[in-house]
Amino acid sequence: MGTSMLVAPPTFTLVAPALFLGNARAAGATELLQRSGITLCVNVSRLQPGPSAPGVAELRVPVFDDPHEDLLVHLEPTCAAMEAAVRAGGACLVYCKNGRSRSAAVCTAYLMRYRGLSLERAFQVGASGAGPAFEGGWASCSRHRCTRLCRAFGKRHPTTPEDLPEKPRDPSQAL
Amino acid sequence: MGTSMLVAPPTFTLVAPALFLGNARAAGATELLQRSGITLCVNVSRLQPGPSAPGVAELRVPVFDDPHEDLLVHLEPTCAAMEAAVRAGGACLVYCKNGRSRSAAVCTAYLMRYRGLSLERAFQVGASGAGPAFEGGWASCSRHRCTRLCRAFGKRHPTTPEDLPEKPRDPSQAL
Repeated sequence: MGTSMLVAPPTFTLVAPALFLGNARAAGATELLQRSGITLCVNVSRLQPGPSAPGVAELRVPVFDDPHEDLLVHLEPTCAAMEAAVRAGGACLVYCKNGRSRSAAVCTAYLMRYRGLSLERAFQVGASGAGPAFEGGWASCSRHRCTRLCRAFGKRHPTTPEDLPEKPRDPSQAL
Repeated sequence: MGTSMLVAPPTFTLVAPALFLGNARAAGATELLQRSGITLCVNVSRLQPGPSAPGVAELRVPVFDDPHEDLLVHLEPTCAAMEAAVRAGGACLVYCKNGRSRSAAVCTAYLMRYRGLSLERAFQVGASGAGPAFEGGWASCSRHRCTRLCRAFGKRHPTTPEDLPEKPRDPSQAL
């Protein structure tokens, strides 16, 4: 048996400061959630279980992985809750079944809305931060409907200077 | 059998514009949720079920009805999500098991944080809006630990002019 057989694949990964992306098994990794300082889980699914870690809130965005689902309508409240959790000193985990298109779309929207990144830069940051376990999904996301979704979101909610965090981050350094 | 026997008690009620308070049965009232324009349910409990209405998101704040639970840490992200849902044209339902202290505390915090009300005025508005089905709980809430909780929240996050909605509301008229 090779050593690689003993290494479990990660259930979530840090894609930007205080922002984690994961799959449906992430919510069950109670100890890891707490050790990572995660205070808010965004569960972008109808069927996947929520976290049971004490003190960790769950925002469930009830959409199937289906282009006909309206994820856009949920992005602004979701991103606002995420930013408030981060500003309060916590961190967010965004997950769906596989940690691919739905959760990557929410992360991308958040990076655009509150970290001042363009759509293209948000995709780069996400794919780069996601690492081998998740970058494939992110790349897939960027090619498909998530691009249209996040572009529509960016038009509705352009980032303006007053939207930036109280201590503005330099994306090129912080990310 | 008197006519009153045929009238089911309400599961939730409007306490301020776009803000509903309810008990654990509220989440199951799918048709009523949709008819009321509710887009975000805040479930202030560990055990009560979430909504299954299509398009309705759920923010679960996982606290028991126990003074030792830290509800304060969740108030800012919760209120931010609520305000974003309202600004997006939706409405929020906040509920716990009985629609009493936990959910009333969250409504009070929200009225202070985003509607510019003092703690005392928020309690008045809440108790008045709650009506017979819920005002008892609200009055109870105002006398007990929720007062300390919301006072602490108000000190951490004082409402400032730039925090007010883009179209400021006149509380005396709008509420």
